[in-house]
Amino acid sequence: MKKLPSVNDIIITELSRIPVLGGDVQHALKNTDLGFQGFGEVYFSRVNFKKIKAWKMHKEMTLNLVVPVGKVRFVFFSRSLSGPFRTETIGEDSYSRLTVPPCLWFGFIGLGQTDSLVVNIANIPHDPEESVSKDIDKIPFNWSLE
Amino acid sequence: MKKLPSVNDIIITELSRIPVLGGDVQHALKNTDLGFQGFGEVYFSRVNFKKIKAWKMHKEMTLNLVVPVGKVRFVFFSRSLSGPFRTETIGEDSYSRLTVPPCLWFGFIGLGQTDSLVVNIANIPHDPEESVSKDIDKIPFNWSLE
Repeated sequence: MKKLPSVNDIIITELSRIPVLGGDVQHALKNTDLGFQGFGEVYFSRVNFKKIKAWKMHKEMTLNLVVPVGKVRFVFFSRSLSGPFRTETIGEDSYSRLTVPPCLWFGFIGLGQTDSLVVNIANIPHDPEESVSKDIDKIPFNWSLE
Repeated sequence: MKKLPSVNDIIITELSRIPVLGGDVQHALKNTDLGFQGFGEVYFSRVNFKKIKAWKMHKEMTLNLVVPVGKVRFVFFSRSLSGPFRTETIGEDSYSRLTVPPCLWFGFIGLGQTDSLVVNIANIPHDPEESVSKDIDKIPFNWSLE
């Protein structure tokens, strides 16, 4: 039986922000980078300040998440529900990519004063049959910020 | 001899912005979309309000440009210098993707009050040998806004 991914399988990769006159250039993902699993779709998910989007789990999609604008805290847990929560905060001040294997549950909260922008570079195109959701209150995670 | 692309070969595709509680979802590019030519790299280019980044020409890269945040006016002309300028303004209010074939010169100006974000989903990874630049004042284009 295939081992389910755990939150320890998430890869964090620091990314470059290159100062350029008129507006910086920010890296996201190359086809030779660690975490690249093929290209299916790029889409964006805005998240308003202090708003939470949770919970979702992709059965097949590997996510490559980058936050070029704002700041977002992601929370992950494994489908087995046996593992602990893992939180990672990324954005302009901590500019990194999260590579998230399939079968992990996740949610996120916007911490930018205006909308934060989550970019997902996914290895398969969006397919509503491929993901499952849970209501936010079904999982006892304390979203309040210290 | 291969015909050089002209500004008429740029493809404009309207994109969906889906209202979602907590923050909208915005489409960018799927691997089955018109204009998809393979995946090399995703990167971001910020452009400050009223700042201009110009001019650049990619010899091999097909660009897929989306502006999920702000508003950007792009200006294109052909390498043959025989064609006219073509301008296209995209962003939150006119949410579309520009597919730009190689060998066209382009520049852009930020029209969002804060930084606008240009996302380029490119068919090859960035390679400094593959693009050429010209100083902004080498091309007689009037950037002033009516």
